[in-house]
Amino acid sequence: METPTGKRRLDTRTVRDYIRTIVDFPHEGILFRDVTTLFADARGFRMAVDQLLTPYAGEPIDKVIGLEARGFILGGAVAHQLSVGFVPIRKKGKLPGSVISQAYALEYGEAVMEMHDDALRPGDRVLIVDDLLATGGTAVAGISLCERLGARIVGCTFVIELPELGGRKALESLGHEVNALTAFEGA
Amino acid sequence: METPTGKRRLDTRTVRDYIRTIVDFPHEGILFRDVTTLFADARGFRMAVDQLLTPYAGEPIDKVIGLEARGFILGGAVAHQLSVGFVPIRKKGKLPGSVISQAYALEYGEAVMEMHDDALRPGDRVLIVDDLLATGGTAVAGISLCERLGARIVGCTFVIELPELGGRKALESLGHEVNALTAFEGA
Repeated sequence: METPTGKRRLDTRTVRDYIRTIVDFPHEGILFRDVTTLFADARGFRMAVDQLLTPYAGEPIDKVIGLEARGFILGGAVAHQLSVGFVPIRKKGKLPGSVISQAYALEYGEAVMEMHDDALRPGDRVLIVDDLLATGGTAVAGISLCERLGARIVGCTFVIELPELGGRKALESLGHEVNALTAFEGA
Repeated sequence: METPTGKRRLDTRTVRDYIRTIVDFPHEGILFRDVTTLFADARGFRMAVDQLLTPYAGEPIDKVIGLEARGFILGGAVAHQLSVGFVPIRKKGKLPGSVISQAYALEYGEAVMEMHDDALRPGDRVLIVDDLLATGGTAVAGISLCERLGARIVGCTFVIELPELGGRKALESLGHEVNALTAFEGA
């Protein structure tokens, strides 16, 4: 950044500073935390990827697991940073090969996440990556899919958590460590 | 790789060797080229990211554009490799902010892709990334969205092309350079 006198100034923006809030998306009364403004900024995106990995420095990780769809953007970058493979967990019907499925509760009804049944091997150490930890429903489904293939969860790492929705408690009560770069109040 | 006598052997697998073919997905008669086996392999994934960028060595690139959803995985990694920002182009209704939209033809009917209207600035040099170039419909829609915001397309880079479906011709006839790592016959 440049000051009016042309001197360079230290850029002190944090990951949180790059996230914008959209009012009433996807429906009235919701404050949607938009990470696309974080991803679009070279410095912000790289900082987010670095911080998603900070707690796991020195830990062996075999695969990065990304949850559809924003978890794909982050997961692809995190896998690249670690020089490991990337495994997608997708909404029902999107993966072409033989899959295992896991249902999870939504506000109304339920949804199903799927993973290829040969995507992980017993003993694989995996890191689960997504942009947002809200109720933890999709993350718990993702953990379950990985564990059913015999993988060990090294951690679950998110850009944002919404503590009031209880996702951290849900994951920690299952014995999993949670990393989140920033938290927002409200749903 | 190890030989039966325990000596290490050079791993000569190419990007193509990591792609598997699923018969009859998403419907009968289709040979689906599955890149998840490429992404899941540390060496394969890194090789793909490197080769997606080979033609653009030394060229300034301001943003990487990824097309939903597999283009997010590759685009996130490519943006990270370049240390630039990532901008998603998504299916209708998924982006929270103010968007511009572009319709494109499907086999039956049409679909709409969207991009945030403030995601690019005039003069931005962008690289469009996706896993598959088939008819080129989504890529042409993506190019159109970027150009409407005044960006310049440096190139369009894909893991797979299906030459019989004409995507390369569609993009080249609009004056855009196409990079594809491997081609498969048939649709």
